[in-house]
Amino acid sequence: MLLPQIHQPSDLKDLTTEQLADLAGEIRQFLIEKLSVTGGHLASNLGVVELTLALHYLYDSPKDKMIFDVGHQAYVHKVLTGRMDRFDTLRKYQGLCGFVKRNESEHDVWEAGHSSTSLSAAMGMALARDFKKEDNKVIAIIGDGALTGGMAFEALNHIGHEQRKLTVILNDNEMSIAPNVGAMHKYLGKIRSDKNYLRAKDEMESLIKKIPAIGDKIAKTAEKLKDTLKYAMVSGVLFEELGFTYLGPVDGHDLPKLLETLQQADNVEGPVLIHVVTIKGKGYLPAEADSYKWHGITPYKIESGQVLKAAGGHPMYTEVFGQTLIELAEQDERIVAVTPAMPGGSGLFPFAARFPDRMIDVGIAEQHAATMCAALAMEGMKPVYAVYSTFMQRAYDQIVHDICRHNANVMFAIDRAGFVGADGETHQGVYDIAFMRHIPNIVIMMPKDENELRHMMKTAVDYNDGPIAYRYPRISGLGVPLDQVLTAIPIGQWETVREGEGYAILGSGPMVQLGLEVADELKRDGMNISVVNARFMKPLDEQLLLDLAAKGTRMLVVEEASQAGSMGSAVLEFFASKGLHDVAVGIMGVPDEFIEHGSIKDQQREAGLTTENIATALKALAPGEAITFHKNSV
Amino acid sequence: MLLPQIHQPSDLKDLTTEQLADLAGEIRQFLIEKLSVTGGHLASNLGVVELTLALHYLYDSPKDKMIFDVGHQAYVHKVLTGRMDRFDTLRKYQGLCGFVKRNESEHDVWEAGHSSTSLSAAMGMALARDFKKEDNKVIAIIGDGALTGGMAFEALNHIGHEQRKLTVILNDNEMSIAPNVGAMHKYLGKIRSDKNYLRAKDEMESLIKKIPAIGDKIAKTAEKLKDTLKYAMVSGVLFEELGFTYLGPVDGHDLPKLLETLQQADNVEGPVLIHVVTIKGKGYLPAEADSYKWHGITPYKIESGQVLKAAGGHPMYTEVFGQTLIELAEQDERIVAVTPAMPGGSGLFPFAARFPDRMIDVGIAEQHAATMCAALAMEGMKPVYAVYSTFMQRAYDQIVHDICRHNANVMFAIDRAGFVGADGETHQGVYDIAFMRHIPNIVIMMPKDENELRHMMKTAVDYNDGPIAYRYPRISGLGVPLDQVLTAIPIGQWETVREGEGYAILGSGPMVQLGLEVADELKRDGMNISVVNARFMKPLDEQLLLDLAAKGTRMLVVEEASQAGSMGSAVLEFFASKGLHDVAVGIMGVPDEFIEHGSIKDQQREAGLTTENIATALKALAPGEAITFHKNSV
Repeated sequence: MLLPQIHQPSDLKDLTTEQLADLAGEIRQFLIEKLSVTGGHLASNLGVVELTLALHYLYDSPKDKMIFDVGHQAYVHKVLTGRMDRFDTLRKYQGLCGFVKRNESEHDVWEAGHSSTSLSAAMGMALARDFKKEDNKVIAIIGDGALTGGMAFEALNHIGHEQRKLTVILNDNEMSIAPNVGAMHKYLGKIRSDKNYLRAKDEMESLIKKIPAIGDKIAKTAEKLKDTLKYAMVSGVLFEELGFTYLGPVDGHDLPKLLETLQQADNVEGPVLIHVVTIKGKGYLPAEADSYKWHGITPYKIESGQVLKAAGGHPMYTEVFGQTLIELAEQDERIVAVTPAMPGGSGLFPFAARFPDRMIDVGIAEQHAATMCAALAMEGMKPVYAVYSTFMQRAYDQIVHDICRHNANVMFAIDRAGFVGADGETHQGVYDIAFMRHIPNIVIMMPKDENELRHMMKTAVDYNDGPIAYRYPRISGLGVPLDQVLTAIPIGQWETVREGEGYAILGSGPMVQLGLEVADELKRDGMNISVVNARFMKPLDEQLLLDLAAKGTRMLVVEEASQAGSMGSAVLEFFASKGLHDVAVGIMGVPDEFIEHGSIKDQQREAGLTTENIATALKALAPGEAITFHKNSV
Repeated sequence: MLLPQIHQPSDLKDLTTEQLADLAGEIRQFLIEKLSVTGGHLASNLGVVELTLALHYLYDSPKDKMIFDVGHQAYVHKVLTGRMDRFDTLRKYQGLCGFVKRNESEHDVWEAGHSSTSLSAAMGMALARDFKKEDNKVIAIIGDGALTGGMAFEALNHIGHEQRKLTVILNDNEMSIAPNVGAMHKYLGKIRSDKNYLRAKDEMESLIKKIPAIGDKIAKTAEKLKDTLKYAMVSGVLFEELGFTYLGPVDGHDLPKLLETLQQADNVEGPVLIHVVTIKGKGYLPAEADSYKWHGITPYKIESGQVLKAAGGHPMYTEVFGQTLIELAEQDERIVAVTPAMPGGSGLFPFAARFPDRMIDVGIAEQHAATMCAALAMEGMKPVYAVYSTFMQRAYDQIVHDICRHNANVMFAIDRAGFVGADGETHQGVYDIAFMRHIPNIVIMMPKDENELRHMMKTAVDYNDGPIAYRYPRISGLGVPLDQVLTAIPIGQWETVREGEGYAILGSGPMVQLGLEVADELKRDGMNISVVNARFMKPLDEQLLLDLAAKGTRMLVVEEASQAGSMGSAVLEFFASKGLHDVAVGIMGVPDEFIEHGSIKDQQREAGLTTENIATALKALAPGEAITFHKNSV
């Protein structure tokens, strides 16, 4: 066993290539065993074992900067940089992060959870190195899926122009999370698979040599053409055109070849792109056979590959969304679904099976997806932009400029709204209300349960006055019965789910249930409070608010969303703009800090969103009382 | 004269090619004359006269969809679609919009002010057409600068994959607003200028024919290589690789050639990219000679090309920023400036002249710029990301995920904050407070005058605890003396600029001055109000707020920013979270609607931000009073 002796990258330096290959096997075994218990991103990490070993063998981290795009494929890097003993805590509260994390190790120089940032980071680090007249290497490792993100292209364009020394490793496993989409993908496939295309390079050389014999005039032409011919033979012409030296494709599981190519890259002036072909799930047959399923995996039995599902449970909101969309689409052929590379995570596989032609996967391209939805809507379609709250951040400008300004009838299905659990701070869906609420024309909703989600989806289809969004959490529904007949909810109409007096909790989504629990607890103290399902974040139910205020009700807005700028602020703004300055409104939301990985319950507790805190805050609304809800209240 | 007879595109259909060429001359004359009085985007429109004529001659608008990227080069389109008589009102309040505008004409099918959206729009319209089984054409006209925006690449990738029928016209004038940056630009230049490269196509044909004579074995190789050779000869190989049929380059001022190529494109299956080379400013010598200056121009004398500057006036905030940055950079070599293709508009030309190596123009690439800044900062540099408020929207996710989450020491110089005047609703800088305030770790400032801007810039350089932004308006400074010694302002410290009692106006930027005017007016009514320069939008001056509240002061927050989610909300949230429910706080900001083009004063009036309204609102804060400040108050 070599692995127990590896505590830092320098421990690799004296190993032979054979030993490195043995070590690769040990690391695979380690990951397969550890993740069978904790779950995590298995397939992508099994794909980069040799690549990560080669990088740490050749380069001198952290002086040399290794930038992992997305960063969920950095488990091998974590193993090699002294974090082996923490894998039992992977993705758990206060445990090892599932992504690159700077507070874990000096070898983690760049964090990410969203894709396509690595090339910009590499460019910044290369520039800084040159400004400081230092000589470290900068290496970005990016998947073929991430390469389709627009910002990756912006970076390629700039890097090719600036010609700074840096290495881009294109980890081409023919798959991002979902099977890849797009012309770039087809192009890479052509390079990988077209044998003629590759052999041609050698054959061409001898052919060119023979051309001059034909005659003087043609010889001259041939001379002029040589550059062009040579250029044609470079298989990575697209990257060469953008100013990179292209090397590859290289088998990413062939260590000697990998090491040779990386060293070759070091001798090139300017930027290099190394095209490395890897197999996702390499070395574990179940994962190789279905790398999509094994991208992010729950605990499993190693021998059989059988995944251990959490016991029973109600359907996730995501599944209810997917099924309901089929029902709605059966009745309205204008409905089409648009996803930026998340057909599975968004629950759209059943829809895609039922309506393959109405399912549009654009690849990792949140901006394009949003603007395309605007155009679809303006031409009479009813597009549903299915997206995670956190990734929707990429489309903020397009939502303002193309969708809301055009007042286009785009429906947003915002999944993973609120805390997301194990993915942690890069993925929290707590900003979408705050970044959308100030945009004119948009309607924003959140259902209290999965049945209401269905009615909201109907509400959105029936609504033809502009963009409308429904957001839902990454959890199971409450198991309530699902109405078969769907009815639109009047826009802006809230629902009083518990009629009390004196005090009211105003919440949305899972906070309604939490509010009811608080009400039950307070009842024991003799308080009979109201709970309102404040299901429209925009527009507010102004009449209900005015009625509550008129009765002297003291209100507490509770939301699993940024306390700054979300619905609590909207309620405060409303009363302020009405000149009602003595209404007691408290607000509780996610404090002004990034909340790390753990369970959703851990994260709610970190944010102070517990029944106990809510009860305390509510009581503090009594006249004359004052309390700070959270150490970092905005 | 043909022009007076053209009221709609159908009036072109019977003209001969010669007549169209004559008409081109008349349109140029019309634009040069009209814009000499109103100002506007001259150079880009002179460049697309023949192109726009050819499109409207061949296609059937609005059935066929013409999508103009950015849309400031649609003046010729406006001339041809019945809006000639409105050019006297160009970019004026309630006048002809400087961009494509749907409420002006059925021929305006897609609005834009931000670049790079046209390809996504075209894809959406092509998809909708196919869903509806219609057969209209879809044509996107995009400049070479806009092509570097990441979302344009996302769209190219998707369009190439889907193979729907649509035409992309690449209007290549070697220049977006600023001279173009990036590898894509070099690539286009190569196609344009390399005669060998172009001639090779023909010569290669005869060469290939002769190869088989050499011998059997080589003939076979040659056969296999033919496809590759042919492929090499296609000059637009980069676009061909992405799945487009490439046609061009075509002289964009040669009408017969343009018409021929457009018709050729109609016969191609799937997506076509036509590379049209145009000259910005074509037909007006001063504009041809300096198309950068003549991109957006103020009124001028036609004969001399002399630009009529507005009389005197104090330096713009933009200029003070540019000059001060030089001073700071002289003393701190860690400072570098980053711009997404706006070196001139951001006032950075003097900086670029002084520190060419420390000026990084990334092209139209707001996302890449932001993430690159994070990496620069994390490696010890002090990057200044100079960007317009409206374009910064494109980098929202990168600000959250890469800058603020990393707590990187990035400085944001946010120009055009608040209303922007003639550019109108696509360019208003009224959302940046609302979309940044909820992000942890960031500091946001706005100066009351140009001298304070200088001190804020020093504050930012001295601040090493994370990202910090200063935002300033698109107006002249107040003409105040500029301190030579710059001193950092304590983070979060506001300034009471007028000490009064009972009532206080809390404002930032130009609203401080407006507040003082209101105070003067109210003095005549016997009221002695306070005016506070609330120069930090985040963090707030909590102590000052508590002091004001303790004295029973009734406060009105006034800001030229979205009323929803901006500083007014922050003040309300603060008091709510402190349990202070009876403090009278009024808020006035930009209402929940898009404000159209006009002067900044027009726009302030539209938003209700007048001294009269402010005074009324302030008085309404008196106990027992209630008032709605604006018909659309949030």
